[in-house]
Amino acid sequence: MRFARFSTHNGPRFAEWQNSHWQFLDGEIATRLTPNGERVPTTARMLAPCDPRVIVGMAHNALPEGRFLPPQAFLKSSRTVIGPEDPIFVNPDLGTVNVETELAIVIGRAARNLTRANALDSVFGYTIGNDVTAADQASEDTLLLQAKNGDGYTPLGPWIETSLNSVDALTMHVFVNGVKASTGSTSELANLVIDQLIHVTRYLSLGPGDIILGGCPGSFAAVLPGDRVRLEIDGLGYLQNSVHSAAASASSSTAKEDHHGSQR
Amino acid sequence: MRFARFSTHNGPRFAEWQNSHWQFLDGEIATRLTPNGERVPTTARMLAPCDPRVIVGMAHNALPEGRFLPPQAFLKSSRTVIGPEDPIFVNPDLGTVNVETELAIVIGRAARNLTRANALDSVFGYTIGNDVTAADQASEDTLLLQAKNGDGYTPLGPWIETSLNSVDALTMHVFVNGVKASTGSTSELANLVIDQLIHVTRYLSLGPGDIILGGCPGSFAAVLPGDRVRLEIDGLGYLQNSVHSAAASASSSTAKEDHHGSQR
Repeated sequence: MRFARFSTHNGPRFAEWQNSHWQFLDGEIATRLTPNGERVPTTARMLAPCDPRVIVGMAHNALPEGRFLPPQAFLKSSRTVIGPEDPIFVNPDLGTVNVETELAIVIGRAARNLTRANALDSVFGYTIGNDVTAADQASEDTLLLQAKNGDGYTPLGPWIETSLNSVDALTMHVFVNGVKASTGSTSELANLVIDQLIHVTRYLSLGPGDIILGGCPGSFAAVLPGDRVRLEIDGLGYLQNSVHSAAASASSSTAKEDHHGSQR
Repeated sequence: MRFARFSTHNGPRFAEWQNSHWQFLDGEIATRLTPNGERVPTTARMLAPCDPRVIVGMAHNALPEGRFLPPQAFLKSSRTVIGPEDPIFVNPDLGTVNVETELAIVIGRAARNLTRANALDSVFGYTIGNDVTAADQASEDTLLLQAKNGDGYTPLGPWIETSLNSVDALTMHVFVNGVKASTGSTSELANLVIDQLIHVTRYLSLGPGDIILGGCPGSFAAVLPGDRVRLEIDGLGYLQNSVHSAAASASSSTAKEDHHGSQR
């Protein structure tokens, strides 16, 4: 099944794909999503498909280098989340900025100390995550805060797929301005989905709507203001965003909170 | 003025201190807090005084070592937030765990690229923050995710003070089981409040209720399950929590979400 989230006059609302159209649901990931019979207007703006409180990224998680290092993770600010067609803001002062196609795990319920036996029970579904990274900042700031948290640095979407086959062999593409820039596969990840869940929840609690970004096996590309970015993953559709200059970001901070679709 | 947050049947609600008692307010930090004439029952449970979406900690921010390093910050999971008297969970497998008394800046409105001229306008107030840290994990995981994000690792409270004098010369104490373990002062911070705001918002957006933990100039102590911890800062009262074994944490994950007082 496919779940998306749309902007409405009553705040963000979930919807489910029904053959040919989106149908509104009542509820939240944490509770229960039930159809309410109302169609989503085709003009409705799609939001990020969840509103994570916590976003975890996997560091150095591509083969072959990741094989020789212990798994390692980092946090991203949940204020970096944007949806399809929302702007990614790039500040030229921070050097090269990459977009990265990553498989994003969407957590469905409270998850802590997961084991191989129960880890996948905590997963609500999967979506496309773009782990935007100001790559040159990683040497300035080894804690990665400066590299990972610009405005619009975590596009998510377009929808959450709950019945995805073989999450560990999905092809991932990056297109910039309509041209394929790179390709990778989740099969090239050093720590696959289940290992990511086990590692992260050994150290912290996750909850409904939280995200683990699985890492980037080659599926990245440098971008500049004016670029159009399209990320694709098998079975998850595509996630498109435009890159803007961060000069526009400071003056639109209020608007950004609205784009984000937070309920708070 | 002093603002606190209490658990009620209708969810968390803000209150203001009026000479001798707490008075409920309508609204949120982001909007406007207005008295509604209702007294907070003396039996009401106090929550963390805000519900941050983003928590930033300052790394190596004590003198003299901090003076010779560029300012550096890290993120903590907002799911680590607890209030007064909520349990801190310590997992003995992770080595030494320290509690740290830190001045916590509570952000009042959207804040990005702050300058010396406007940084303090973004501050709603200040509270006591306990940046609990599994210190031995910092060498295992240089990104600090493993050190900083255990359950109950960010006690906040008891209240937010909005008219604090001289935030850059406040004495901070740690008491463990009634005995003073250590003392420091915000005057010993390498980057003072205004510099923390400028540094952090150069790289990311903060919003209402978000927290910057200013760092720990010696005001820390190692703790073990069974310990009672009391943190004090001039003008901010004291923040008390008990330390529990993390074995109890896994089985009470649902209860913890309630302690946290999140509205989401």
